[in-house]
Amino acid sequence: MSFQNPVFIPGPTNIPERLRKACDMPTIDHRSSLFADILHPAREGVRKVLKSSNAEVFILPSTGTGGWETAITNTLSPGDTVLAARNGMFSHRWIDMCTRHGLNVHVVETPWGQGIPADRFEEVLTKDTGHKIKVVLATHNETATGVRSDIAAIREALDAANHPALLYVDGVSSIGSMDFRFDEWGVDIAVTGSQKGFMLPAGLAIVGFSPKAMSAVETATLPRTFFDIRDMQTSYSNNGYPYTPVVGLMQGLNEACTMLLDEGLENVFARHHRIAGGVRAAVAAWNMPLCAASPEVYSDTVSAIRTPDSFNATDIVSHAADTYGVAFGVGLGEVAGKVFRIGHLGSLTDVMTLSGIGTAEMCMKDLGLDIELGSGVSAAQEHFRAKSELQHKDAA
Amino acid sequence: MSFQNPVFIPGPTNIPERLRKACDMPTIDHRSSLFADILHPAREGVRKVLKSSNAEVFILPSTGTGGWETAITNTLSPGDTVLAARNGMFSHRWIDMCTRHGLNVHVVETPWGQGIPADRFEEVLTKDTGHKIKVVLATHNETATGVRSDIAAIREALDAANHPALLYVDGVSSIGSMDFRFDEWGVDIAVTGSQKGFMLPAGLAIVGFSPKAMSAVETATLPRTFFDIRDMQTSYSNNGYPYTPVVGLMQGLNEACTMLLDEGLENVFARHHRIAGGVRAAVAAWNMPLCAASPEVYSDTVSAIRTPDSFNATDIVSHAADTYGVAFGVGLGEVAGKVFRIGHLGSLTDVMTLSGIGTAEMCMKDLGLDIELGSGVSAAQEHFRAKSELQHKDAA
Amino acid sequence: MSFQNPVFIPGPTNIPERLRKACDMPTIDHRSSLFADILHPAREGVRKVLKSSNAEVFILPSTGTGGWETAITNTLSPGDTVLAARNGMFSHRWIDMCTRHGLNVHVVETPWGQGIPADRFEEVLTKDTGHKIKVVLATHNETATGVRSDIAAIREALDAANHPALLYVDGVSSIGSMDFRFDEWGVDIAVTGSQKGFMLPAGLAIVGFSPKAMSAVETATLPRTFFDIRDMQTSYSNNGYPYTPVVGLMQGLNEACTMLLDEGLENVFARHHRIAGGVRAAVAAWNMPLCAASPEVYSDTVSAIRTPDSFNATDIVSHAADTYGVAFGVGLGEVAGKVFRIGHLGSLTDVMTLSGIGTAEMCMKDLGLDIELGSGVSAAQEHFRAKSELQHKDAA
Amino acid sequence: MSFQNPVFIPGPTNIPERLRKACDMPTIDHRSSLFADILHPAREGVRKVLKSSNAEVFILPSTGTGGWETAITNTLSPGDTVLAARNGMFSHRWIDMCTRHGLNVHVVETPWGQGIPADRFEEVLTKDTGHKIKVVLATHNETATGVRSDIAAIREALDAANHPALLYVDGVSSIGSMDFRFDEWGVDIAVTGSQKGFMLPAGLAIVGFSPKAMSAVETATLPRTFFDIRDMQTSYSNNGYPYTPVVGLMQGLNEACTMLLDEGLENVFARHHRIAGGVRAAVAAWNMPLCAASPEVYSDTVSAIRTPDSFNATDIVSHAADTYGVAFGVGLGEVAGKVFRIGHLGSLTDVMTLSGIGTAEMCMKDLGLDIELGSGVSAAQEHFRAKSELQHKDAA
Repeated sequence: MSFQNPVFIPGPTNIPERLRKACDMPTIDHRSSLFADILHPAREGVRKVLKSSNAEVFILPSTGTGGWETAITNTLSPGDTVLAARNGMFSHRWIDMCTRHGLNVHVVETPWGQGIPADRFEEVLTKDTGHKIKVVLATHNETATGVRSDIAAIREALDAANHPALLYVDGVSSIGSMDFRFDEWGVDIAVTGSQKGFMLPAGLAIVGFSPKAMSAVETATLPRTFFDIRDMQTSYSNNGYPYTPVVGLMQGLNEACTMLLDEGLENVFARHHRIAGGVRAAVAAWNMPLCAASPEVYSDTVSAIRTPDSFNATDIVSHAADTYGVAFGVGLGEVAGKVFRIGHLGSLTDVMTLSGIGTAEMCMKDLGLDIELGSGVSAAQEHFRAKSELQHKDAA
Repeated sequence: MSFQNPVFIPGPTNIPERLRKACDMPTIDHRSSLFADILHPAREGVRKVLKSSNAEVFILPSTGTGGWETAITNTLSPGDTVLAARNGMFSHRWIDMCTRHGLNVHVVETPWGQGIPADRFEEVLTKDTGHKIKVVLATHNETATGVRSDIAAIREALDAANHPALLYVDGVSSIGSMDFRFDEWGVDIAVTGSQKGFMLPAGLAIVGFSPKAMSAVETATLPRTFFDIRDMQTSYSNNGYPYTPVVGLMQGLNEACTMLLDEGLENVFARHHRIAGGVRAAVAAWNMPLCAASPEVYSDTVSAIRTPDSFNATDIVSHAADTYGVAFGVGLGEVAGKVFRIGHLGSLTDVMTLSGIGTAEMCMKDLGLDIELGSGVSAAQEHFRAKSELQHKDAA
Repeated sequence: MSFQNPVFIPGPTNIPERLRKACDMPTIDHRSSLFADILHPAREGVRKVLKSSNAEVFILPSTGTGGWETAITNTLSPGDTVLAARNGMFSHRWIDMCTRHGLNVHVVETPWGQGIPADRFEEVLTKDTGHKIKVVLATHNETATGVRSDIAAIREALDAANHPALLYVDGVSSIGSMDFRFDEWGVDIAVTGSQKGFMLPAGLAIVGFSPKAMSAVETATLPRTFFDIRDMQTSYSNNGYPYTPVVGLMQGLNEACTMLLDEGLENVFARHHRIAGGVRAAVAAWNMPLCAASPEVYSDTVSAIRTPDSFNATDIVSHAADTYGVAFGVGLGEVAGKVFRIGHLGSLTDVMTLSGIGTAEMCMKDLGLDIELGSGVSAAQEHFRAKSELQHKDAA
Repeated sequence: MSFQNPVFIPGPTNIPERLRKACDMPTIDHRSSLFADILHPAREGVRKVLKSSNAEVFILPSTGTGGWETAITNTLSPGDTVLAARNGMFSHRWIDMCTRHGLNVHVVETPWGQGIPADRFEEVLTKDTGHKIKVVLATHNETATGVRSDIAAIREALDAANHPALLYVDGVSSIGSMDFRFDEWGVDIAVTGSQKGFMLPAGLAIVGFSPKAMSAVETATLPRTFFDIRDMQTSYSNNGYPYTPVVGLMQGLNEACTMLLDEGLENVFARHHRIAGGVRAAVAAWNMPLCAASPEVYSDTVSAIRTPDSFNATDIVSHAADTYGVAFGVGLGEVAGKVFRIGHLGSLTDVMTLSGIGTAEMCMKDLGLDIELGSGVSAAQEHFRAKSELQHKDAA
């Protein structure tokens, strides 16, 4: 394994020089004003990346999983009911967490590879006339299957059912890479981490709460201390933190927001879409299906590629690591052994992507799959050329 | 505030070059063997620093507070009773966390500045013939008051009472700096973080569980997912992690253990004792009392210094930051405004310490206290000279 | 231009993480023993990389050009005669330097793309019965044309002519990447820099002197102070340096030697040969000629590729930089506009190389050349697959 | 020796975080516009630091010694006469270099500890009616003795003698730390390095040429190639460099200029003066004489302190390194063993300085000198308090 090659896992992503340096800082006094000058801009930057005007943003020394726990323990009580679809490993894990915290989860089982079925949510919500469902959980981008769900449609389902449930969205592998509209979609809690669209090392859970979600905090009785946002909120208002903050990573987050906002969120999304398009062009050239069932659910941050039935897809990942020093993602859960994943999010260029595609080709051929070397690369090159030239002309 | 001056807060400490570089690493695939090569040695290193042969060590993307929550949520159930002394801000917070998680806390109120009263613990435990008390909580080093408690004496109290309660120790500001004997003292859970004795940035909760504590995990019903050590244990045994690990910081922890063990734990403790002795010599020369009531509870990692009654001790901290660019610690809770704190743990030298003492003198004189400039510095110099020469001869 | 993409210039090369960190060090006292612990191992490491048992190695804060000046000013006197072939920009520059220092240069003009003609050297040397020629200059690897000359053959020419001239070799773009045999080839001075095979930033001239070259120092009258190796030698023997050394870069050099020697020089050379083979396979697939006239002079560190007559090769380099953020090398001197260069030395992997080849293809197609996208990439993949599998089996 | 303690050598200085990061950069194509964006601002920044409107600035991969060689080889011819005073090790070395390059040096021997005698220069220049003296050499700050000479007075001597000689100033340990007025003082060549006032690692020679010095380049016949500023000038005008530049260090230089100019040169000089004043107050409290003969020649960047006759001053330096991990400077040349030096330039704070003074006291006492511990520290504290409070009020 070489530190020189880019990684093609669906997060943590490659880290830009600038963020490496922002994170790597000497110790400062986190009770001094130096910390406030990091904390507040970082929160404001995240708010803008969420496209929200009034989300209350909390940054915790944790991961996306801790972000989920922050969402549910701060707003729910034992015995509460939530609605969720299970269409991949991460939605599954969130459901499992709810169960372990004593919640009732109304699970809409959904084939892995499909998006969240907003129509079925609408049915369920419409039937719930007693409004027992307190929260709808939605995984925006299923990292395990490379499937993006339509959050706007879920909001519409809630509205159509005239249901007051809160809407919590796991945007761990979408926020900062794909369009996310906290306010417009009526999201109540958004959850993400530092290691995906923000291009940082793992170590921060990042959550945004709507005013409605903040109200729910008052009555929630699930126990929490580390994840208690009331302590966070009080400390923030005093320019402090309820315990020792991870200052370097928070400085990195602040810098990452600056990078994303300076590039322009729409440009960031377009770049991810262009690079994802190159990967998908390669996959099409290989005549291999994506796990994602149809183009409208294709993820711009990760592609899960189905290998032939008799083939163990995980071998590609092991072989790439052992022989070429390149990291791809394995299949997880239901699709373990059936797919391998190419992550294409965060700090990545067209040029780096070619090396990932080229490596996948070598691996598949080495392992006996019927792949023409260069076929995927040339499809991606064709894709990138057209787009890059355009971009170039715009810039000129 | 200058990045050039050392910090004198009681953690996070100054970070050695070597650890700065160990933490600052490019992204690797945390599902590859590269990660296992960091995870397992780091856990083994921590075990040695704890002086334990069989503690199960868990490393979580969190802080000491999260370490406490890991301890209680994994081993206790709502309504369980724990015994604790409140003798400073951090014992107070741990008690508060227990209450918020639905535990009954038998609190032994103790003057701030004194250690945990083992004799009173023995009384309480002896009376608890029904063994309702499941756990005894002990803060080894009260960072707020600069007081070290005698954990061996608490073990003796448990044994004298023939009580089966588990013993959980908060070693956040002691482990890696002052002697800690997990096995010998019969500790069941030890809690620490990355940012004190391990000289790293904050971001990791580090906990060790005895076999007896591991048994308690099976029956505990407090809800937990992020902090659930069962998931951790299963993942570790598969060379993995239940969610995305903070790889750079874990590599730093591994390197920190190597540094501590290469220096020799007893040498590390002696170094902290020597430097603490220099600070205490300075404080004595200033004719100012320590918050710590008597020498046997003096902490070797932080000194809380009482200022005259009419004086706001926090002014020293503000003035040092604003005028000299140096960070000291403010008083917390009951002793806010009454003490200021000099942290002297982690990556620090005699020479750096002189500059902290000298700065404190300038601040106190600037603010009108009756301090002779150089008085504390010369006392510390005298202390360091004798010790350093000795050390020098030993090395020769 | 993106810091994320690898560079494909023929030096400075991509820098490994490990060397980035070795170079980036805080200030130490260069008059202390800390410096000696860097200086001596670095010199010893270079000696091993040169495959010499007794070369006197000097490390100067300069570049390869300064290394040349060190060679000639320390061993020659105004009016002395040297023999050299001009077959590229770098041999040309060395000749020019000699002229500017008042030496007579017997120039053997050689077509760019060919190696040094050892047979013509032999003729010249044989005719020089008065031994007016004091030194034979040879550029081992012409970075401008991608041509490697046969140094052993030049040694044979000297021996066949029974001529006592010294042999100075510019190994700037070969040493540490291609086989170099200081002792076996009877090299008297070898010159290189930090930024090629040693994979470091520029900033060091590195030279090795044979005992015979050291003898010549006594009588040489060209003026020099900064480059005077007598001062260097005296200082080294006192664990010092004649002026302020570039400590971080020297620590990097020490670490680079460790990396090269740990990998094994023959493995390092094989790696360069494999990667160069991939690039050449791609060039062949493009049906484009190399500047290098024939396989026996193909360089393993840089390939200069001739573009069609009516085409300005420099456009490829500009387009790659502007549109794809990738750096290739332009043609220099006689071949400016006629070739573009792909550097493939130092810290590079097969996988990174694919992205360089793929980018070159996109550029050439963008600019209207008749190139089939993926053609070169697939040729390189085929090359790398076979070699990497073999390597993999060896490692198993 | 600990990386944690500051260094107190008279260069290289402690390096600010910001400059560590600026220097530590990945490889870029030095033939691309990225390099021009570093080169030109760095040259412009140096020009401003020199207080010049039209100096031609050259930046070479070398050191101050190479800067001297650049000055003389580009503007003088063998047999030319120069005038210089020898009043310390660095003026001695510059004289030696001239001799080795075949120049005649008219040496005005001057006691070490005194400044350059402008009156004697005036006598010599007045007598030189034939204007054989082409250049007057002046070492602005003798790093060996801690003596600053009066360059304005030397300019006045030249003018009073109505002599056309050029004026070359070694500002290696003054530029960027003490006032330097290239234009106002009529300096023709100024020489410095990266590792002093610019707070960077060693590795760059930095020289400024007046238009008059540029004219002298045309006729100078001393051989040079690496240091030839004609090649530099041509390359600069094409946004290039005559060989491989040290890009990271040049980026560091650009950033260092930004830091100095943002702080304000007069503030930078005042800071050095304040810190030097603290050191001198300590030395006075120790009842030890400075090597510098009188206050008007006291250097603000380094103090050389004379120890009692029977005492070897170098022992202090060795003892500080061995016992306390602190680096001071030894005496050089004529004052070897008679002085030890405290460097107080570049990136340093009042607070860091206290630790250096305190360490010197411990060392001297350890070695048997009659020193009262804390005496120097308290004198420095008194000095810093007054100044810092003032500064504080200004800032408020």
